[in-house]
Amino acid sequence: MATENVRPIIGVFDSGVGGLTVLRELLLEVPGADYLYFGDTARLPYGSKSAATVAKYACSAVRYLEQLGAEMVVIACNTACALAYPEIERCVNVPVMGVIRPGAESAAKASHTKKVVVIATEGTVGSHAYSTALSEWKVSAQEKACPLFVPLVEEGWTDHPITEQVAHVYLDELTRSGSSADVLLLGCTHYPLLKELLRRVVPPQMAIVDSAESTARSVAVKMQRLTASVTAPHIRFFATDSIEKFRRTGTKFLSREIGEVALVNMEP
Amino acid sequence: MATENVRPIIGVFDSGVGGLTVLRELLLEVPGADYLYFGDTARLPYGSKSAATVAKYACSAVRYLEQLGAEMVVIACNTACALAYPEIERCVNVPVMGVIRPGAESAAKASHTKKVVVIATEGTVGSHAYSTALSEWKVSAQEKACPLFVPLVEEGWTDHPITEQVAHVYLDELTRSGSSADVLLLGCTHYPLLKELLRRVVPPQMAIVDSAESTARSVAVKMQRLTASVTAPHIRFFATDSIEKFRRTGTKFLSREIGEVALVNMEP
Repeated sequence: MATENVRPIIGVFDSGVGGLTVLRELLLEVPGADYLYFGDTARLPYGSKSAATVAKYACSAVRYLEQLGAEMVVIACNTACALAYPEIERCVNVPVMGVIRPGAESAAKASHTKKVVVIATEGTVGSHAYSTALSEWKVSAQEKACPLFVPLVEEGWTDHPITEQVAHVYLDELTRSGSSADVLLLGCTHYPLLKELLRRVVPPQMAIVDSAESTARSVAVKMQRLTASVTAPHIRFFATDSIEKFRRTGTKFLSREIGEVALVNMEP
Repeated sequence: MATENVRPIIGVFDSGVGGLTVLRELLLEVPGADYLYFGDTARLPYGSKSAATVAKYACSAVRYLEQLGAEMVVIACNTACALAYPEIERCVNVPVMGVIRPGAESAAKASHTKKVVVIATEGTVGSHAYSTALSEWKVSAQEKACPLFVPLVEEGWTDHPITEQVAHVYLDELTRSGSSADVLLLGCTHYPLLKELLRRVVPPQMAIVDSAESTARSVAVKMQRLTASVTAPHIRFFATDSIEKFRRTGTKFLSREIGEVALVNMEP
């Protein structure tokens, strides 16, 4: 069991509050660590931006986490992992863990037909990062951008009939009528909030794999000695725009109250 | 009629491609000018950002247009006008025209009941900028944020049954069952693309006023000598992120092909 003076600090980075779904899973899987969470809310969303822009923004954020003492950085942002993982790894001296490899590995293990449907933002889908990762396990991927899911989640319509209709428009063709895919991989941090709704939309025999959970389990494997703790993790939050909005909207992603949030200015 | 050597240059600024609906109206109303259009696509959307962040971004963009020779700047971005108009006016030496006052004036003139429903982004609604402007004409405003309209337009669902349902969820309470409002004011540059759909959603006696059209007419009044021209306006486009995406998505907002787009880096 970890003692107070050896608690490592894990940095978690996302373009906004979505990565709090990854932090939520980390708090369950690795309660023996302390956490720094950085949401680049002034520059979100990354999903519609170019690889060069995403790399620049993500590197400045993870360097900030390293300077604050993070001994490992989890890139909770699927888009940043998809478009700029090698650049992010190069720009810091601490280990970096992304969400794509753990998500792809879990999906590959869950699939018997070796066919997976991946849903994500436009940027992630355009990069084919999940498809590339899944091919290592000889699994083929059908990737589908679902650009309305993030705004629907942010509107709070996580259980709304309109969201269910949108999900049918996006997914029916890929999951029904003769498709042999047996896993739906949630490749965006916002999508865990739609898991129950998606369960009703896709066929019952289709497994739903969440990259946030898979990532937390991978971090737990790396840090086995930290999976139990006598004291609660200490968490510090940083955002680049409105801290009130971060607290207000972040609560539903983290499933708990968010305390103090520090405002960070990333530009001169 | 303007001759070639006296054609003034009008700068048009928006957070993205939405302001091309304002440029489209300007090309109809003021064809005797040349245009510079700046879309701050790397930092969009402004609608969910704080006033301080929006002011900083908008000022850097309008200064850029001034340096390129703009003799007047039109702030096509409702959110920037709502949150940072005084700051933007102060940071350049050329006249600045926003979209909120012209939109409010047209709506006030169109309303017999002196009650207007304003739809806009969260940031614009939260600022109550339209409400403040309308109160000068003794018109009361009911303001409603419609955060899903922008992503629905960007998804291309401008005539989709799901978009029509979303519009009913947002608007029915405000426009039906005893409401005496007789004007719907479109307070976001993306909304003109939903005008036909909204026409079906709101009661037939309700007028729809579009800030983009109203703004172009206000610019035309200021520049009367330029409302006719023998040659087509010269237009240069600038964007802070993916120029391909700007061209692809911008076409439907401008209703014509977009030529060369220059990539601008606004950060060091």
